[in-house]
Amino acid sequence: MNTDINTTPHRRYNILTGEWILVSPHRNKRPWQGKTEKQTTEKRETYDPTCYLCPGNTRNSGKTNPEYKKPFSFENDFPALLPKNPSEAFEQDLLKAEPESGICKVVCFSPDHSLTLPIMKIEDITEVVKLWKKEYANLGAKQNINYVQIFENKGDIMGCSNPHPHGQIWSQKSIPTEVQKKSEHLKKYWLENKRSLLSDYLKQELKLKERILEETEHFVALVPYWAVWPFEAMIIPKNHYQHIGQLNEEEEVDFAKIIKKLTIKYDNLFETSFPYSSGIHQAPTDGLEHPEWHFHMSFYPPLLRSATVKKFMVGYEMFAGPQRDITAEQAAQRLRELPDEHYSFR
Amino acid sequence: MNTDINTTPHRRYNILTGEWILVSPHRNKRPWQGKTEKQTTEKRETYDPTCYLCPGNTRNSGKTNPEYKKPFSFENDFPALLPKNPSEAFEQDLLKAEPESGICKVVCFSPDHSLTLPIMKIEDITEVVKLWKKEYANLGAKQNINYVQIFENKGDIMGCSNPHPHGQIWSQKSIPTEVQKKSEHLKKYWLENKRSLLSDYLKQELKLKERILEETEHFVALVPYWAVWPFEAMIIPKNHYQHIGQLNEEEEVDFAKIIKKLTIKYDNLFETSFPYSSGIHQAPTDGLEHPEWHFHMSFYPPLLRSATVKKFMVGYEMFAGPQRDITAEQAAQRLRELPDEHYSFR
Ligand SMILES: O=P(O)(O)O[C@H]1O[C@H](CO)[C@@H](O)[C@H](O)[C@H]1O
Ligand SMILES: O=P(O)(O)O[C@H]1O[C@H](CO)[C@@H](O)[C@H](O)[C@H]1O
Repeated sequence: MNTDINTTPHRRYNILTGEWILVSPHRNKRPWQGKTEKQTTEKRETYDPTCYLCPGNTRNSGKTNPEYKKPFSFENDFPALLPKNPSEAFEQDLLKAEPESGICKVVCFSPDHSLTLPIMKIEDITEVVKLWKKEYANLGAKQNINYVQIFENKGDIMGCSNPHPHGQIWSQKSIPTEVQKKSEHLKKYWLENKRSLLSDYLKQELKLKERILEETEHFVALVPYWAVWPFEAMIIPKNHYQHIGQLNEEEEVDFAKIIKKLTIKYDNLFETSFPYSSGIHQAPTDGLEHPEWHFHMSFYPPLLRSATVKKFMVGYEMFAGPQRDITAEQAAQRLRELPDEHYSFR
Repeated sequence: MNTDINTTPHRRYNILTGEWILVSPHRNKRPWQGKTEKQTTEKRETYDPTCYLCPGNTRNSGKTNPEYKKPFSFENDFPALLPKNPSEAFEQDLLKAEPESGICKVVCFSPDHSLTLPIMKIEDITEVVKLWKKEYANLGAKQNINYVQIFENKGDIMGCSNPHPHGQIWSQKSIPTEVQKKSEHLKKYWLENKRSLLSDYLKQELKLKERILEETEHFVALVPYWAVWPFEAMIIPKNHYQHIGQLNEEEEVDFAKIIKKLTIKYDNLFETSFPYSSGIHQAPTDGLEHPEWHFHMSFYPPLLRSATVKKFMVGYEMFAGPQRDITAEQAAQRLRELPDEHYSFR
């Protein structure tokens, strides 16, 4: 007897990181008596006088935001990295440390306090894409910035301390661990095949269709075969671009479009403002050519069963490795079947 | 000018996994306006008729727990792994999966619903150690069980759905990712030096003292130099043992003692039942010799500033790598200075 591997416990291989993930398709049936999250339902005002990200308001640091009309970025008042670092590398037997330097920025997506990406207009999301491009280019051009990590923490369960629509950029001297893992696997494939690993993967997924969520002219949103988070998704450009700097104007709009489409699906899933962390992985800015790189944007949303029950990545996941309870295909199907219009406008 | 590396942003190297962690010592000062957790303060009864882990009660599956008096283990009613898996490995271009099989067990630490490890008696924790040893030996002896992961998720913010004191054991055919990373680095050191990496590390830490939390005759509890979680800690046996099966009776008691000491410190830190995930990493049970392995128990607690404010491992951490706001030395000092007696008994 040969049972379909997708219906019994199995491990899937992540071609980008070389790591495995445990899938337990039968397990989502177990009853949940644990922690539930508070659902955030408050409607927000377009301007909040107490919000340190709203235009014209004064931040904790004493600095005042301009009356910005378009996406606005500034240096984080409490940065995890500092531009200059006078320390020297340290090594003493088995203790090993290195100074790290970098620049941390905050990117306000909109002056309007009440918005989120899925309910912003495509033209306004396009302005966010343009600002990301500008930051990637400017930060990346600096001598000691070899990687630029663009990300968003959305929702308080993702550690976001202010609901004003915003993301962050942490740029730094060293290449971070997760990026290094992907670099390695992309490079290996590139050297062996002289083709982009993600181009080939995309071709395969477009043929199989079962994990595809959305397709626009230049982008595809899908649930990767090796997804870890219950409704994890990935946006991949059809063109083999190393970084977002290569997007032309039409593609910028198209990128905005697919971000909107995907995040609407997310909000519609549990009819809630769907929390996630998203991030763009792209070529390091270390001055080297990176033909192996193929940029992509990933979304890691924690919700599992409802607006209030999330997946916990705890004991087993921390000590052994990631584990999930529904398959990538089940997640993709559920997301695909949802309406394309945001629930709050229906 | 040569600034002390510990006071400015730096990266530290984890000798066990080969990965780096970003430390931002200056950043803990930032104000926190984000999510706070509910503090669990209810005093629990020693027996709860609705608890599926209490002695004599019937579980969801219809099975009834015996009137156990000592730690009690049983097979998980909703296991992530199943003992038999008839599927075959699957590979289609860039999609790759493997069947996985294993046995998942639940370990009730005590019949008393109201307890936790820090408030259990040393002799009763010793019984838990004995049961872990038995499970490691029995599960590990099975043909298709090559790794036995013992862990505990404590507290509802760690995904624990029942406050009855208990942990879990997931044992499986493949060697999990985190274990494999450590195996690799332990092995490299062993082959090069014919000494245990953790023995040498322990020697160095005992000399430096600044990260040591507790020392008993046979064990040391410390904050590892490369700690990720704010108050992460590690218990290491002084003897170079590959697995807990090698502990003799005296060492079992001593292991229980240091677990109690460490978890009392934890509870005393914010005067709350301190949430964490803990796990024991030890030699695989794949039938091979593992002279390189040196077992240890790690604790990953999420709380950062108070009983209600935790560290979020989100955007940057997910896409780049772990980041922390206080140094290992600061964390160790705070824990060290706390009383040895549990706050609830004072
Ligand atoms: O098995 P439990 O306690 O129901 O579940 C808990 O621990 C598991 C192992 O770390 C996780 O996969 C779950 O997300 C968590 O809620
Ligand atoms: O910078 P913020 O929004 O204050 O902080 C949030 O994002 C950071 C980057 O992922 C994390 O290190 C913090 O734990 C999280 O609360």
